[in-house]
Amino acid sequence: MALIIKPDLEHARPWREVFLETLPEQECREWDRPGDPEAIEYAFVWAPPSGALKTFPNLKCIFSIGAGVDHLLKDPDLPDGVPIVRMVEPELTQGMTEYVTMHVLRFHREGPALEAQQRDRVWNELIVPTAPSRRVGFLGFGVLAQDSARVLNALGFDLACWSRTAKTVDGVQSFRGADGLDPFLARTEILVCLLPLTPETDGILNAGLFAKLPRGAWLINAGRGGHQIEEDILDALESGQLSGATLDVFRSEPLPKESPFWAHPRVTVTPHIASVTQQKSAVEQVAANIRRIEAGEAPLNTVDRVLGY
Amino acid sequence: MALIIKPDLEHARPWREVFLETLPEQECREWDRPGDPEAIEYAFVWAPPSGALKTFPNLKCIFSIGAGVDHLLKDPDLPDGVPIVRMVEPELTQGMTEYVTMHVLRFHREGPALEAQQRDRVWNELIVPTAPSRRVGFLGFGVLAQDSARVLNALGFDLACWSRTAKTVDGVQSFRGADGLDPFLARTEILVCLLPLTPETDGILNAGLFAKLPRGAWLINAGRGGHQIEEDILDALESGQLSGATLDVFRSEPLPKESPFWAHPRVTVTPHIASVTQQKSAVEQVAANIRRIEAGEAPLNTVDRVLGY
Repeated sequence: MALIIKPDLEHARPWREVFLETLPEQECREWDRPGDPEAIEYAFVWAPPSGALKTFPNLKCIFSIGAGVDHLLKDPDLPDGVPIVRMVEPELTQGMTEYVTMHVLRFHREGPALEAQQRDRVWNELIVPTAPSRRVGFLGFGVLAQDSARVLNALGFDLACWSRTAKTVDGVQSFRGADGLDPFLARTEILVCLLPLTPETDGILNAGLFAKLPRGAWLINAGRGGHQIEEDILDALESGQLSGATLDVFRSEPLPKESPFWAHPRVTVTPHIASVTQQKSAVEQVAANIRRIEAGEAPLNTVDRVLGY
Repeated sequence: MALIIKPDLEHARPWREVFLETLPEQECREWDRPGDPEAIEYAFVWAPPSGALKTFPNLKCIFSIGAGVDHLLKDPDLPDGVPIVRMVEPELTQGMTEYVTMHVLRFHREGPALEAQQRDRVWNELIVPTAPSRRVGFLGFGVLAQDSARVLNALGFDLACWSRTAKTVDGVQSFRGADGLDPFLARTEILVCLLPLTPETDGILNAGLFAKLPRGAWLINAGRGGHQIEEDILDALESGQLSGATLDVFRSEPLPKESPFWAHPRVTVTPHIASVTQQKSAVEQVAANIRRIEAGEAPLNTVDRVLGY
């Protein structure tokens, strides 16, 4: 009985050793040396090739290394009936909260204008409003966004969220569904995208959506590159509809050298580091779920394949 | 019976109108038209010329427009026995908390390195630790620093403070007095200066202090320019003892065009805007204190002239 692992090679770190230490009862196999496929009961993977997971006939559970599972659900041959678990671990949440808080504050406090003043050696005492009069909106309001909202709430921001189902979180106005999107956008000065990537949310950050924000709004996308229509972001910056964009994710990663985002004066590019799964707590979560399954219980943090998250 | 006001001319805004509305029972006079000096009972001032306040023989209270009172105490002819009130108002505190949180996060998250990567079009997934393993230290721990600590605590940072008297705040290790300074510095990776400027703290941010920080520490000074020896900051950046500095205050303000800080790749210059007194809530605080005095009560938030804050 074995576990097979396929970490993202660009984040290659000794995952196997952490598994051996945390979950010694499972034989841990690396992706390129699977051995007997019938022995594989668990897979811990990032972006496996389409059809690969189908070759393990006794798979009991598929664990995503990241919070998103779009990299799994795009596989047309993903084995039916096998539960899929998304990554929920405290360090992943923590990293996102830090990233979102920092970049919301940077836009709120007119960071780009102050940076331009420094370049030009201009001492101009820009007066900015305080957080209670700044309207921040979360597009998507799962575990990561809710923790970011906890800190932004402590800072006093005027918060709202948009999600499929209504959310009840203190200090956060909830908008839901298709009807809720336009009023949510109309009141949002700083838009933070933390949606899952699904067929419904693919390309949601487009010209039509930007046009519904107040003029001069700011965009932070720490969801997926697939959410954004990149030419529409550039156009909205050009027209002034967006004042700035902070992007941690891109349609093509690593972001190609020739992308206009790199040198754009009002775009911050970060290399998909808003939030990184930490080995130790990630493996502990997987181990706890494997022990649940072995004890006949359902795993925690499973994904609804129809909803896509 | 009258109130005289001397706002900072660079922040000139219609203070007088706010006073007339909030405190209609007091005649509000502008600094350059004081009228009969014997009628002046209250002064609401920023950096009055030395000797000027002494010309009002019936002064009952002096209100500082900012949180610091160094601009008053440097007057050798400051009238004896007149209480001095420092500015404590929610918007001033809020602004500082936002500034400190943003700049602590920027250093913690390797903002300068990521910005350099973007300039060079480099996609390198820098892995940063999360806040619980980052040690932030407050030099000075009054109202402003304590509110910043509240938010940094919600973010999970490892916090300490150094102050004259020990402080008991959840989640913040307290160091005090001369003996406490070295151990405080030895454990502090991101140093935030929010001290009052007094003869004891003048020039405290110097080479000797920087040498006691861990190598590669970061400095944020949102206190006063008088705290910093500016050549020592440049030397510490040059040697690598400091990795970066975010400075909101300077020995000479506005920062002269020829200052090396402007173009320094590891210095962020902001034009003394970390925290700005907001008119409405400031005048409400002054009005409440004047009404206390008129009712025979002692004003709140008075300054100890010997301690200097």
